[in-house]
Amino acid sequence: MVSAHPTTPDRLVDARLPDGRRVDMVLRDGRIAAVEPHRSDADAHGDTVIRCGGALVLPALVEGHCHLDKTFLGAPWQPHLSAGSLRERIAHEKVLREQIGVPVAERATALAERMVSLGTGYARSHVDIDPETKLSGLHALLEVRAALRDRIGIQLVAFPQSGILTAPGVADLLDAALADGADLIGGLDPAGFDADVDGHLDVVFGLADRHGAGIDIHLHDGGTLGTSQLRAIADRTRALGLGGKVTVSHAYALGQVDGGELDRTAAALATAGVAIMTNGPAGTMPPVLPLRDHGVSVFAGSDNIRDAWWPYGTGDMLERATIIGLNGGLMSDDDLTLAAAMITDSAATALGLTDYGLHLGSRADLVVVAATGVPEAVASHPERLWVLHGGRVVAAA
Amino acid sequence: MVSAHPTTPDRLVDARLPDGRRVDMVLRDGRIAAVEPHRSDADAHGDTVIRCGGALVLPALVEGHCHLDKTFLGAPWQPHLSAGSLRERIAHEKVLREQIGVPVAERATALAERMVSLGTGYARSHVDIDPETKLSGLHALLEVRAALRDRIGIQLVAFPQSGILTAPGVADLLDAALADGADLIGGLDPAGFDADVDGHLDVVFGLADRHGAGIDIHLHDGGTLGTSQLRAIADRTRALGLGGKVTVSHAYALGQVDGGELDRTAAALATAGVAIMTNGPAGTMPPVLPLRDHGVSVFAGSDNIRDAWWPYGTGDMLERATIIGLNGGLMSDDDLTLAAAMITDSAATALGLTDYGLHLGSRADLVVVAATGVPEAVASHPERLWVLHGGRVVAAA
Repeated sequence: MVSAHPTTPDRLVDARLPDGRRVDMVLRDGRIAAVEPHRSDADAHGDTVIRCGGALVLPALVEGHCHLDKTFLGAPWQPHLSAGSLRERIAHEKVLREQIGVPVAERATALAERMVSLGTGYARSHVDIDPETKLSGLHALLEVRAALRDRIGIQLVAFPQSGILTAPGVADLLDAALADGADLIGGLDPAGFDADVDGHLDVVFGLADRHGAGIDIHLHDGGTLGTSQLRAIADRTRALGLGGKVTVSHAYALGQVDGGELDRTAAALATAGVAIMTNGPAGTMPPVLPLRDHGVSVFAGSDNIRDAWWPYGTGDMLERATIIGLNGGLMSDDDLTLAAAMITDSAATALGLTDYGLHLGSRADLVVVAATGVPEAVASHPERLWVLHGGRVVAAA
Repeated sequence: MVSAHPTTPDRLVDARLPDGRRVDMVLRDGRIAAVEPHRSDADAHGDTVIRCGGALVLPALVEGHCHLDKTFLGAPWQPHLSAGSLRERIAHEKVLREQIGVPVAERATALAERMVSLGTGYARSHVDIDPETKLSGLHALLEVRAALRDRIGIQLVAFPQSGILTAPGVADLLDAALADGADLIGGLDPAGFDADVDGHLDVVFGLADRHGAGIDIHLHDGGTLGTSQLRAIADRTRALGLGGKVTVSHAYALGQVDGGELDRTAAALATAGVAIMTNGPAGTMPPVLPLRDHGVSVFAGSDNIRDAWWPYGTGDMLERATIIGLNGGLMSDDDLTLAAAMITDSAATALGLTDYGLHLGSRADLVVVAATGVPEAVASHPERLWVLHGGRVVAAA
């Protein structure tokens, strides 16, 4: 429990920057107005300051991949049920979400509020667009986004969870979703699910081009089936000049192929400006250090958080960085700093966030954590002492 | 932040048991004196009760494997340094621990106190016994154990981190350690480190027999090199009638061999009463479900917590259960309940704890967590609301 705090502090006193400097950070109009060396707590007058006592300040954590519409948070615990194929699991999820009786908006709000409490200032959420759900999930999340806009920024990806080519009417629904307010167009295993790489990507890139939208494609297809699709996505990205606006989520294939195939694919991704999102699965995680060396942007997301897909997930992005670090063999301070970038700067860049960071003039989207440095914050995912969004305190320990 | 609470409550009101029943738990003389169906909060008079509001009560969490002497907690953050071989890392650790300047007792106390705050009521800690350290680490931890005895029960394993046969004088030091108060005799890769399985095990089992001590052997050796040693340990355990008093920690080999070799080894372990401890490493984790089916007791520990071996580790056993669940593919409620047993009942049995559990007459070593059931507690490792040791509140949110 930290001491009482102002709602809109004009100064963070004795905050530790990622580079180790202890500073006073002056906040004005929701932005960082000055960063001054910290001298003495005696200088910190008044009740409009937050005394950080040397705790680390980070820019807001970024949730790079979640499914706000799927979570069971806000509803009673749901036992996980096994399913055979991917299609069976998808069908099964629809039944469960009907049965649960708690509306999408209520569950999504419960999860988004948890994210806020954990220092997440921005989240990219996929939302199912399929022949049964149609646009109802999107419309619910648009309302949640509006209701929470002062506490968290939410990006929405129109996600064809039931496929595009193999699900009647979905292409038109995705088009409507982008018209209605979705920020990005999604995709799902063009080969493994829809069995038509070009047909699937024609729809995805066509809609992105028409709406000026970003792209974020789920790709679970493994081995060279996966890497060939990664290169196809890179080719289209380059051809359309969409570099920096395209993400491939999961991309397990990068963790499964070796040497030349990895190098070839990584080079294509880096050149085209396609980012990779991972939640750090054991065994199939894209190799973050080689990808970094190739210049590929890799960022982090939680993926499923207590939903029909699996019972795990807390929404804590610092804990996610630990999971990625453990499964990726990230050990040195440099490695841990890379893991931190995956939930902050790299993710912010992939999401196209402007005014993000700890620079002068950046939005004051900040989280103060009980750690003395970035590597420690990743390894111990400690308590969030204060969370600010646009200069306003939105959570405190 | 929970409401004010009595130091020694005489009743937990409206606690949820693992089986789902909501009960009032009457505590007396540090033990569970009665468990009654919860009727109404109106019945709960006075300021000597804790109102749980339907939160889950678990028996104290059990840390099955840690190294209190190694942790850097309580000292400034130490960047992880890479090392080549196992012997290099061991040498390197000795230098680091000298340099850090914070005494063993202070660091161990910081970690043990963190464990208490996270609901851990019992911990088995290994302590290095080697030609340089000799018994100094043990003596420090014996003092820590005495100082914290009202908050956490600590078992100590005399651990030959630098080997036995290849480290002059260690056999005698281990003998002295057991005489001085260590509870168990440890071991380290009889083949891979000391290169003499029988010679190593002769010392370990000889000392156990002489002192009436339990055994807990670190075994990282992989493949059939590892499983053959597991069977050798099982054979000696059976021969000496030490069933229930012997643990092999890590036993990566069980996660590396297939079919017949796994079955043969698991059967030997189950018959002999040798337990397996894992911290759930990705890729090399012993397969908990098949081992359970063979009747092998498998329990959990954190292993290293922010030390020279790695920068990770929080000491949170519910988070450890999540890591084990993620890497072991534990998904159903039954699976998650197994993961919970690994940090409670199974671990307590392996540690030989008596009076443990939620039964009438058990010691009131309890943790109340913000969850509505055991699977949820594992998947979300939520806040610890109250922690009791011997009926006394030793931590509260």
